[in-house]
Amino acid sequence: MGAEVMAARCSRLRALSQPRRSLLALTAAGDRAAPSPEVMENEVFLSFTFYSTILIIKMYIVAIITGQVRLRKKAFANPEDALRNGGLQYHREDPDVERCRRAHRNDMENIFPFLFLGAIYSLLGPSPTVARIHFFIFCVGRIVHTIAYLLQLKAPTRSVAYGVAQLPCFSMALQILLATTPYW
Amino acid sequence: MGAEVMAARCSRLRALSQPRRSLLALTAAGDRAAPSPEVMENEVFLSFTFYSTILIIKMYIVAIITGQVRLRKKAFANPEDALRNGGLQYHREDPDVERCRRAHRNDMENIFPFLFLGAIYSLLGPSPTVARIHFFIFCVGRIVHTIAYLLQLKAPTRSVAYGVAQLPCFSMALQILLATTPYW
Amino acid sequence: MGAEVMAARCSRLRALSQPRRSLLALTAAGDRAAPSPEVMENEVFLSFTFYSTILIIKMYIVAIITGQVRLRKKAFANPEDALRNGGLQYHREDPDVERCRRAHRNDMENIFPFLFLGAIYSLLGPSPTVARIHFFIFCVGRIVHTIAYLLQLKAPTRSVAYGVAQLPCFSMALQILLATTPYW
Repeated sequence: MGAEVMAARCSRLRALSQPRRSLLALTAAGDRAAPSPEVMENEVFLSFTFYSTILIIKMYIVAIITGQVRLRKKAFANPEDALRNGGLQYHREDPDVERCRRAHRNDMENIFPFLFLGAIYSLLGPSPTVARIHFFIFCVGRIVHTIAYLLQLKAPTRSVAYGVAQLPCFSMALQILLATTPYW
Repeated sequence: MGAEVMAARCSRLRALSQPRRSLLALTAAGDRAAPSPEVMENEVFLSFTFYSTILIIKMYIVAIITGQVRLRKKAFANPEDALRNGGLQYHREDPDVERCRRAHRNDMENIFPFLFLGAIYSLLGPSPTVARIHFFIFCVGRIVHTIAYLLQLKAPTRSVAYGVAQLPCFSMALQILLATTPYW
Repeated sequence: MGAEVMAARCSRLRALSQPRRSLLALTAAGDRAAPSPEVMENEVFLSFTFYSTILIIKMYIVAIITGQVRLRKKAFANPEDALRNGGLQYHREDPDVERCRRAHRNDMENIFPFLFLGAIYSLLGPSPTVARIHFFIFCVGRIVHTIAYLLQLKAPTRSVAYGVAQLPCFSMALQILLATTPYW
């Protein structure tokens, strides 16, 4: 029976994902390309992957902005960097640099857990529409959070963005717990 | 031969996990629900997922406590938050807030690597009992670490909790290296 | 047809990975060991896992060094630790400790996103050779970054190591976006 089950499951997967597989197939056209595993045929997982990568790139941009602000304000965390950029007097703190660093740290506190929760949640077989709403709200919330932080928008813009982005995270965490509590 | 192997493997998996699959099946009852991939039939992985999610929720709770301490002690990292909560004089540091932040940072340094190590270790096919002991020790160690940090328990309670929680991490890291060194 | 496809795919995988599977098989020899999922037969993913684990161990070493520097320089972040190590006067900051902490934080900002990007990239079916070059450059870049940070090497050694390590990350992020944009 196993073989038929696998075959049926396989073709169901194919029916779901075929019209959109062209790009993945292209990507996989390397010399000795490994076959893409089942998870990469799960469209919820692929959607999660898209939003996650956007947010990681957003974090990289915050890091680049931090470096630019350090150069512009001449405020370096390390004496060796200050020496190279004008002298030891620039080995100092700056409120704008600290603001960038707080934004980055808050991203780590919230986006990294999302990378885990979103991946597991995708594998629980949620409705693709509901799942996409989760990912989209988180992604927009975190982008607004960063903009509000860096542009110093009036409170509570930043806190509201943070809170809204936490909602899908709590929802996914609860759904994962519901599904995995029997396995503790 | 491949088909029989797959079939046998499939039924072995089913025998292992059938009595406990009801919740996952329920979760998967969405409109166009994607079928759950193989990894979600791996009970070690599901156990890992449970403990990881508990620890992520624990981190969210530390974030909420930090916010509450900021409001109670009137100590805000951003001038825009201070302005909304009484005035710029509350744009200041506070030792209790810094304590919460150190606890949160230590969590990031240790729980995030666990999310990776535990996932890969689960896929190496460890004994479920031994794997659960790994996850359980880490989870309890990190919860005790947070309690010791926030309640300022006498040293070395916090350090011992940290050290105990690192043991399963080192064990998992070594087992992953043993299994993957041929592929470097 | 499904069964034959699965069988063919299965044997192709086996042909790719058989000579190197002995260690994984050994690891899987537990009492009720779960069968290793497809992803653990993907050699690019296994290579990624190897480099990631090396980097996580590297981060643990930075944490251990931080603790040793705290003890040697007698600079503790918490009064309860200072009390146990000579008195409250040692509840203070130290530039060498702060240096270690900055190195560790920079690792979190960059190695944790790699754990995500590398895993997804591995599943896109890249050429194993190209993938290994990505992982190797990142790994060496981050090790040099840590050495340059802790030994206070002349600028811009550390920044160059950081920049070089970011190249494979940007490459992987772009490839993931290319493959997953249709699923947003």
